[in-house]
Amino acid sequence: MVTLSQCARPAVFEVDSIDEHGQHRATAIAGEHALTLYLDKRELVTLMTLGADPEYLCLGYLRNQRLLASPELIDSIQVDWETSSAAITSRSLAQRGLSLWEAESSSLEQQLAHRTVTTGCGQGTVFGGLMDDLANLHLPEKGQLRQADLLDLLEQMRHHDSIYRTAGAVHGCALFDLAIDPAQGERPRLLRFVEDVGRHNAVDAIAGWMWLHQPRPDPQRLHIFYTTGRLTSEMVIKSAQMGIAVLVSRSGLTHMGHDLATRLGMTLIGRCQGRHFLIFSGSQRFIAEPALAQHPLRQPGP
Amino acid sequence: MVTLSQCARPAVFEVDSIDEHGQHRATAIAGEHALTLYLDKRELVTLMTLGADPEYLCLGYLRNQRLLASPELIDSIQVDWETSSAAITSRSLAQRGLSLWEAESSSLEQQLAHRTVTTGCGQGTVFGGLMDDLANLHLPEKGQLRQADLLDLLEQMRHHDSIYRTAGAVHGCALFDLAIDPAQGERPRLLRFVEDVGRHNAVDAIAGWMWLHQPRPDPQRLHIFYTTGRLTSEMVIKSAQMGIAVLVSRSGLTHMGHDLATRLGMTLIGRCQGRHFLIFSGSQRFIAEPALAQHPLRQPGP
Repeated sequence: MVTLSQCARPAVFEVDSIDEHGQHRATAIAGEHALTLYLDKRELVTLMTLGADPEYLCLGYLRNQRLLASPELIDSIQVDWETSSAAITSRSLAQRGLSLWEAESSSLEQQLAHRTVTTGCGQGTVFGGLMDDLANLHLPEKGQLRQADLLDLLEQMRHHDSIYRTAGAVHGCALFDLAIDPAQGERPRLLRFVEDVGRHNAVDAIAGWMWLHQPRPDPQRLHIFYTTGRLTSEMVIKSAQMGIAVLVSRSGLTHMGHDLATRLGMTLIGRCQGRHFLIFSGSQRFIAEPALAQHPLRQPGP
Repeated sequence: MVTLSQCARPAVFEVDSIDEHGQHRATAIAGEHALTLYLDKRELVTLMTLGADPEYLCLGYLRNQRLLASPELIDSIQVDWETSSAAITSRSLAQRGLSLWEAESSSLEQQLAHRTVTTGCGQGTVFGGLMDDLANLHLPEKGQLRQADLLDLLEQMRHHDSIYRTAGAVHGCALFDLAIDPAQGERPRLLRFVEDVGRHNAVDAIAGWMWLHQPRPDPQRLHIFYTTGRLTSEMVIKSAQMGIAVLVSRSGLTHMGHDLATRLGMTLIGRCQGRHFLIFSGSQRFIAEPALAQHPLRQPGP
């Protein structure tokens, strides 16, 4: 069991602004905080984050940068906003007086050295080893999403309380699941919703939560990942790493995102607006119900 | 003089998609390509880019990561999409048979080592040394933007041909300038417009262009930086490094972006939509003309 602090920061701040009429207006804006991650006291990286879910962000960062193979290697994550730091303590240090750096130093050092040349800021991604591993990634093939489910999921997102609606300037990600057996007649179930100033952070925070709580997703359930951000190569890769076969976005997609999704057999649904959407790949997991394109949107359930 | 290849990639690709009516539609999507930067044959970073302006992206990356103090240190940048690489050759190598790594290895190595711990992917930024330097950054104080100029600039952007309009999934940045002397009666002049899949890349490509063509911006002209992206700390810092005092965005801003802009005395104008906008800081550089808030939008000039 990993011990996590619970140090979410206030997400919204109020500042003064002047509008086009020359009038002063109190305006809500999103928080943005530097958070420096230390693994066994060694500095890893400084992330700029909304701070809504910092412990899972740390976990997801370690996972998605592939610095650790399992969350079981971690004893605790302690976020301290006074010092803008997250102290990640590995089990080896906690239990054996030996740090993970000492125990596994060569491979960790290698990965960090590699990270230097393959990641950039908002630029580049953890491509190095990942692209090589694509061939070994197999997404679940069972489960289909009906058009009604997709519209329901989008409706849930539209009505979900969000920082975006108050302050803008953030991206949101959400993890949904749904019984594979359609006889269950279930609506898509929201498991986790995270917003952050960077879409990379938001997806990492979801990945961290999943790593701890659903390390092996239930094969009887279809997992769907929703993002307000664009479907770039990185978003496709991170979703694939989480074992998620359906990716839904309000935004568009890039050519490489499309290419990777096609190779992975991932279902990519983009440009979702109201009842409109486009399926770009993996349409075998989608049950079209074109009659719904004409209907008014369903009201959200109780 | 730096020798640059001219290797823009096709920015838009057409793929098949299925819409909500179950109909197939040919859909334009934005390109995304890996580009690995080599400085004197040494691998620096892999960026994911639209590829519209790769040589200036390299230059701006070197500048904004503060890996090089001047573009005069560079002899040539040669982009080759066959190998997805950009070969950056320094003058020292070209002229003296000695690489920049050998000539300045200790400081470059140090900066790269530092980069390892301070940058992350879409996460974090080149904060390390930058925050310390804020006190030394002094933005030009002369020059004011009239409300009519702001609306004109936004109109120009709205009518500018863009990949975003065709394919979505990209961010755009633009550099404008305007005579400080209002007697000139000039409209804001678009100097450079760049789109990329990451807003960091787009701003870096503008920074690279400016580094080469306007290393010391004309003090008789007011420079204005427009972005479709959010005004985060990083965007404020990069603009300040370019000596730009006015930052305009269609999107919102973060608390740290606001805080830094206030400390720098930068004029921050956000949430621009039609005739609406909000001035968040540096209102001394803005001449309000509230009557314009009521008028229909000006048509773009010839």
